[in-house]
Amino acid sequence: MAITLYDLPGVEADRRFSPFCWRTRMALAHKGLEVETVPWRFTEKDRLPQPNAGRVPVIVDDSQVVHDSSTIAEYLENRYPDRPSLFPSEAARALTRFIQNWTETVVQPGLIGFVVLDIHRHIGPEDQAYFRQSREERFGGKLEEVVRDRDARLPAFRETLTPLRRTVERQDFLGGTAPAYADYIVFGAFQWARAISDYQLLAADDPVAAWRGRMLDLFGGLARKSPAYGG
Amino acid sequence: MAITLYDLPGVEADRRFSPFCWRTRMALAHKGLEVETVPWRFTEKDRLPQPNAGRVPVIVDDSQVVHDSSTIAEYLENRYPDRPSLFPSEAARALTRFIQNWTETVVQPGLIGFVVLDIHRHIGPEDQAYFRQSREERFGGKLEEVVRDRDARLPAFRETLTPLRRTVERQDFLGGTAPAYADYIVFGAFQWARAISDYQLLAADDPVAAWRGRMLDLFGGLARKSPAYGG
Repeated sequence: MAITLYDLPGVEADRRFSPFCWRTRMALAHKGLEVETVPWRFTEKDRLPQPNAGRVPVIVDDSQVVHDSSTIAEYLENRYPDRPSLFPSEAARALTRFIQNWTETVVQPGLIGFVVLDIHRHIGPEDQAYFRQSREERFGGKLEEVVRDRDARLPAFRETLTPLRRTVERQDFLGGTAPAYADYIVFGAFQWARAISDYQLLAADDPVAAWRGRMLDLFGGLARKSPAYGG
Repeated sequence: MAITLYDLPGVEADRRFSPFCWRTRMALAHKGLEVETVPWRFTEKDRLPQPNAGRVPVIVDDSQVVHDSSTIAEYLENRYPDRPSLFPSEAARALTRFIQNWTETVVQPGLIGFVVLDIHRHIGPEDQAYFRQSREERFGGKLEEVVRDRDARLPAFRETLTPLRRTVERQDFLGGTAPAYADYIVFGAFQWARAISDYQLLAADDPVAAWRGRMLDLFGGLARKSPAYGG
C-alpha cells in the first residue's frame, strides 16, 4: 500500500514547495517507496492525522502516523533497512545533522529574504492572510520591504554557499558518487525557492546550479517535473 | 616502527600549532599509531622529505612519504583498515569533505583575523620576517591593523559557528557518539588558535567550548597537554 504524504501546495494543488516536504518526498523516492500525496494548507490544522505538530510533512504508512521530516527519515531508514540507505553508517547519520543545521541556519534563512513575497503571491488565497501576518511579525516589517534590497544581498548569499560549492565541484553529490539524505536536505531549500519564485538565486555557471540540476534529474526527474517558476 | 610527522613548532619546539598538522596528529592517535614528531619551520623547505609541497604535515611511514593532511587521512584509512575508522562509510567520507570545506572557508579565515598577530609573536624569530611579509601581502595591511577591531568582529564570528554549535549541543561529536575525522578537521582550527593565542574566542558557556573540551580530553589529553595559551 502506498505511503500517504501530507504536503503543502501553492494556489494550484500540484505546486508543492515546502522544503521539509521535499526532503521527505526525495527520501521516499530514494527508498523506492510508493507515495500518494495529499495537498494540505497552512490553515487546515484539523485535517492532519494525529499525532502531528500542526505542520507538514506528516506521513501515514499502513496505520502508522509519523511527523517531522527528520523523524520521518529515521523512521524510513529503520522500517525499510533493506532499501537504499539514507545514512550509510552511524557516522554518516551524525554528519548529516551538521549539514541539516547549516541548511536551517544559513541557507534557509538566507533564501527566505529573496522569495518571501513570491510565496505570498503563489499560495492559495485562503492562506495569504495567515502567511502575511505570521511572516511580517517574524521579520518586523512588510513583505514588500523584506525583498526590496534582495539584489544587493545576492552576492553575500551566494558567498555563504561556498562550502557547498567547493564540495559539489569535486564530487557529484554531498553523499559522494550517489545522493544521500544530506543532499535532500539542502536540495529541499532550493526546490522550495524554485517552486515558488522565478528569482534567479544561482548564476548559470555556478557548480551549485549544476548539482541542483543533478538533483532535479533524480528519480526520473521527479523534482524537475513538479511545477516551478524556475528561480 | 613509529610514523614520523613533520610538524610546525612555535618559538619552543614543543608548541605545535598548525591546524593541518593537528588533523594528522589526532588521526594518528585515533588509529592508535605511534608517532614521532619532527619540528619543522616555514623557512626550512629543504629539510622536508621528498615528495612534498613545501608545507607540513608530511609523514614518513616505513619508507613511504605522504604529504597533505587530506591525503594522509586517506592513506591512513586505506593502509590501516582494521584500526578505528576515520570515515566509517563512503558516504561519511564524502560528507566529511563538506565539513572540511566549511572549516577552510568559514572557520579558518574567520579565526586568522583574531590570532594572526599572536602567531607572529610566538613563532621562532627565524620565521617572523617570512610570516609577516607573506601574511601582510595576503591581508593588504599590517598585522597590527588586521587584529585591531577583533573585539568588534567577535559576535559575528561566533555566529558563523551556529551549525557546529547546534550539532554538538545534541550529540557529543560531529561523528556522533564517537569522534570521526570531521571532528579533527574542525578541532584543528581551534587548537591552532589555542596553541598560539590567549584571545578568548568562545564564551565559557558555549556548547562549542564544551565540545572543544571533549576533544582536548581525547587520547589521554593529547591536545590539552600540548603547550597552549588557552584562547
